[in-house]
Amino acid sequence: MTIDASAVRALTFDVFGTVVDWRGSVAREAAALARSRSVTIDAEAFADRWRAGYRPAMDRVRKGALPWINIDRLHRMILDELLPQVGLDALSESERDRFNRAWHRLDPWPDSVAGLTRLKEKFVLATLSNGNVALLTNMAKHAGLPWDCVLSAELFHHYKPDPQTYLGAAELLGVTPAETMMVAAHEDDLIAARAAGLRTAFVRRPLEYGARPGYELPRERGFDYVADDFEDLASQLGV
Amino acid sequence: MTIDASAVRALTFDVFGTVVDWRGSVAREAAALARSRSVTIDAEAFADRWRAGYRPAMDRVRKGALPWINIDRLHRMILDELLPQVGLDALSESERDRFNRAWHRLDPWPDSVAGLTRLKEKFVLATLSNGNVALLTNMAKHAGLPWDCVLSAELFHHYKPDPQTYLGAAELLGVTPAETMMVAAHEDDLIAARAAGLRTAFVRRPLEYGARPGYELPRERGFDYVADDFEDLASQLGV
Repeated sequence: MTIDASAVRALTFDVFGTVVDWRGSVAREAAALARSRSVTIDAEAFADRWRAGYRPAMDRVRKGALPWINIDRLHRMILDELLPQVGLDALSESERDRFNRAWHRLDPWPDSVAGLTRLKEKFVLATLSNGNVALLTNMAKHAGLPWDCVLSAELFHHYKPDPQTYLGAAELLGVTPAETMMVAAHEDDLIAARAAGLRTAFVRRPLEYGARPGYELPRERGFDYVADDFEDLASQLGV
Repeated sequence: MTIDASAVRALTFDVFGTVVDWRGSVAREAAALARSRSVTIDAEAFADRWRAGYRPAMDRVRKGALPWINIDRLHRMILDELLPQVGLDALSESERDRFNRAWHRLDPWPDSVAGLTRLKEKFVLATLSNGNVALLTNMAKHAGLPWDCVLSAELFHHYKPDPQTYLGAAELLGVTPAETMMVAAHEDDLIAARAAGLRTAFVRRPLEYGARPGYELPRERGFDYVADDFEDLASQLGV
């Protein structure tokens, strides 16, 4: 099912889970914060719950039940609900703000920087994340991610998987949807990108939710490329 | 008049003339194209006329006489008017499109990459140009400009010096206007940025319009910093 990669000019990347290990990074910050307060928490579970609150909140925006709210604010709304549940409700405003920006300081998967650096030789590389522009920009600086351009759902006031995000990204990059390939570790993102006319590359990230015995990767439903990591994707794309 | 640079978190850059030598770059492409057609043109004058057409066209958008049109399309409208005037009206559609993208391939001033690389250690660096996102992204790749984030008037559907551009850039970067410093070689850009609450740095680019005997730089009207180039700006900002 591999297509002619020479027709592809731009790669757009999902970020949370595809490029960076949000769970491990947020859990480390949560554990350090809890330790400093002599509070015992399950840091991985805390990260999972913070992340789990994000999709329902985002869906309320997508359906028009909430006006446009960026991810920093959605993360903060969820955080303010979670803190009392884990004994951390004494955090001050500035401490909450700083902890909320843990999402700006996510660490990349081990292959991310090297793989992106190779891919950048041949393609325009852009984020296409539901994370807001400031979050993605600060994360790139923190993690050394060599984006050519930072694109976000925030620019379109539509969250993925709304088609406006995929089509808007291609338009801003000055390429057609067929010249754009969405790279993600999540099927629903790629299925929506494909429906909008983009090419698709599925990257396996089996540790996104931690090591889970018996866990099986989602089925790869006919995407243009399927890769084990960004180095593998670069090799398959002839870089 | 120097302010406390530690309060500044993000630098937003004008691009045409401030970071790249649009006139020399466009003139070189125009000269090469004309030579290949055995047509004689004044390449610098051609670049000046192409550039001169851009502000009235942009002002018509700013005043609502034209709907939003990005710079690639404005450049193309002007180009199509100019080509018959210099004996190059035989260019095909694909040749015109390629020539129009000369603006995506502008070369930096000699200090730009080294200066930006230093400034990037301390500040978030973003473009804030009337050029469209694709143009700025391709230019960064061509010229090796190490932006953290590519921001453009295109994202706001307002051209500089409309205040929506300066305020919109700060908001997307997650900083206040007072934490943002606009860097430009043009007074009108900085005066508008200052009116929107941003800090300002004037960079002298005496060769933007070519070497002109007797040319005097615009007056520096109380901007926070005045620098000879980006290396000088980095030194003044303590990087």
